[in-house]
Amino acid sequence: MKTILTGIKPTGEIHLGNYIGAIKPALELAKIDDYSPVYFVADYHGLTKMTDAEEFRHLSYGVAATWLALGLDPNKVIFYRQSDIPEIFELNWILSCLSSKGLMNRAHAYKAIVDENRSVGRESDYGVNMGLFNYPILMAADILMFKTDVVPVGKDQIQHIEIARDLAESFNHLYGKTFVLPEYNIQEETAVLPGLDGRKMSKSYGNTIPLFEEPAKLQKLINKIKTDSLPPESPKDTENSILFMLYKEFATDAEIEEMKERYAKGIGWGEVKQELFQVINRFIERPREKYKELMASPATIDRILKEGAEKARAISTPFLQEIKDKVGF
Amino acid sequence: MKTILTGIKPTGEIHLGNYIGAIKPALELAKIDDYSPVYFVADYHGLTKMTDAEEFRHLSYGVAATWLALGLDPNKVIFYRQSDIPEIFELNWILSCLSSKGLMNRAHAYKAIVDENRSVGRESDYGVNMGLFNYPILMAADILMFKTDVVPVGKDQIQHIEIARDLAESFNHLYGKTFVLPEYNIQEETAVLPGLDGRKMSKSYGNTIPLFEEPAKLQKLINKIKTDSLPPESPKDTENSILFMLYKEFATDAEIEEMKERYAKGIGWGEVKQELFQVINRFIERPREKYKELMASPATIDRILKEGAEKARAISTPFLQEIKDKVGF
Repeated sequence: MKTILTGIKPTGEIHLGNYIGAIKPALELAKIDDYSPVYFVADYHGLTKMTDAEEFRHLSYGVAATWLALGLDPNKVIFYRQSDIPEIFELNWILSCLSSKGLMNRAHAYKAIVDENRSVGRESDYGVNMGLFNYPILMAADILMFKTDVVPVGKDQIQHIEIARDLAESFNHLYGKTFVLPEYNIQEETAVLPGLDGRKMSKSYGNTIPLFEEPAKLQKLINKIKTDSLPPESPKDTENSILFMLYKEFATDAEIEEMKERYAKGIGWGEVKQELFQVINRFIERPREKYKELMASPATIDRILKEGAEKARAISTPFLQEIKDKVGF
Repeated sequence: MKTILTGIKPTGEIHLGNYIGAIKPALELAKIDDYSPVYFVADYHGLTKMTDAEEFRHLSYGVAATWLALGLDPNKVIFYRQSDIPEIFELNWILSCLSSKGLMNRAHAYKAIVDENRSVGRESDYGVNMGLFNYPILMAADILMFKTDVVPVGKDQIQHIEIARDLAESFNHLYGKTFVLPEYNIQEETAVLPGLDGRKMSKSYGNTIPLFEEPAKLQKLINKIKTDSLPPESPKDTENSILFMLYKEFATDAEIEEMKERYAKGIGWGEVKQELFQVINRFIERPREKYKELMASPATIDRILKEGAEKARAISTPFLQEIKDKVGF
């Protein structure tokens, strides 16, 4: 059995892009017999960007409710809230002491902020808090705490797994074999879902379609998707059509084939938008109900996450003890 | 009642300078009725500099045994091992998210390393690990976790208390009044004990006299103390005499007066060294026995520290819960 770990930060309303890019592949991996999945609400990672307590709480419950609504079975995976596992934060400090500052200086996400600041003439570290700067170490603690074998990541996350490996190797070298060296599994085939404007659907572009949007608002958002000005009867190209890219993620194979033919023959954009609404709404209808039910009962979410935390701590408590013994506590 | 907090890092054998500069004043403060003292073995701070597990373990027990041997009464103070209080490390992360990286860039201890590296042509961050860089945040977590009112510090530590205040104020501003703003109490009158070579007694100068040295070795070390080449019969100046500076920390007032007269009349350095040995040895004789007893029984130290940790966690566990509620967990 290989342990596979994924965390989702509660930093924004979950949208269709999150679903297609991260949640759907993770749910599929969870079905593979060889894998023992460890999935968590990365709330302490989210805290690096959140200062509104009510919003933060709502988003944290939202992440948990989303996974459960989409079919994550808490009996088959370890599903917990990061903030319920205190051992991670002690390990975080232990790993800090092994991590050179130079390693953090070279982290891509941090460097991108520094470059951006310099390009507009601001001080290099403008807006950088120490949570952000330490982020890769906490991520390493998340990964190493549960002896993770595989972390499914996008290409921009590869360096984080390499940092976790580096820290694991440093520890193993100093104190003897303790940590599993994690590997990354690049989600190559994962579709990058376009947003309303055609760019990658992302909170930072403000072009998202929230996953559990109500039908009327969903139709409205879909109506806003950028199209060209070809008349209905003109044959259309599926290749560069945002509408089609979204459609094929939610439609059946037969529906996709049929839609391709209709594009070739000529179809009005309004009609495509209507069809797109149908397939998305069909997909989210039941999860949306489940999501609403869960969000109306935070106690249910708490109970499920507490049970998950117990399973997680059955691993992390003795393992941290072993780690501390080796370090000399 | 004011909470007063002091931590001692297990990074080297405790010497007479540590006793006079830190332990003795802390034990005296512990006797003041107005103060509720919280004293701890700062083992996770020590980890920023230690990688030898056996040495680290030995030094950690040594710090605890030293305090107890010198008369710290665990029934009158809260006395614990930092690594027994997991709440500190969660708070450490919460404070990280509130701390700008610029604040850490400006920390004196870090800047001193950077300056030193640059002066010898090395990369700025050479030898800096993330434990060192994050040090002021963990120290703030130590202080704020126990609602500390006063931290007795040397002048070089004032900035750390200011950082703890800054972080407390940021948190209180964002989430409502939660943390006590700590004040520092500069140990102005504290003697800076000279070492064998006359410079401040410090592990980094290699000029220390270990606190619990055995008599024969103690005499040998005292014999190494630098003196001038005046003959025994010449009158001598107490002012610049390393031997006298040490003598007056351990002798009675009457003995000090007598020694001053003998200096004025003329006394051989060998004789002064003999007298110095007597007063130091007289002082450490009983604590040394107690220290040896404790070091031979780590289970006793463990028990005392565990009891202390229970008292500490009776504060930190509900307080962290309150903090997390406010942040939005």
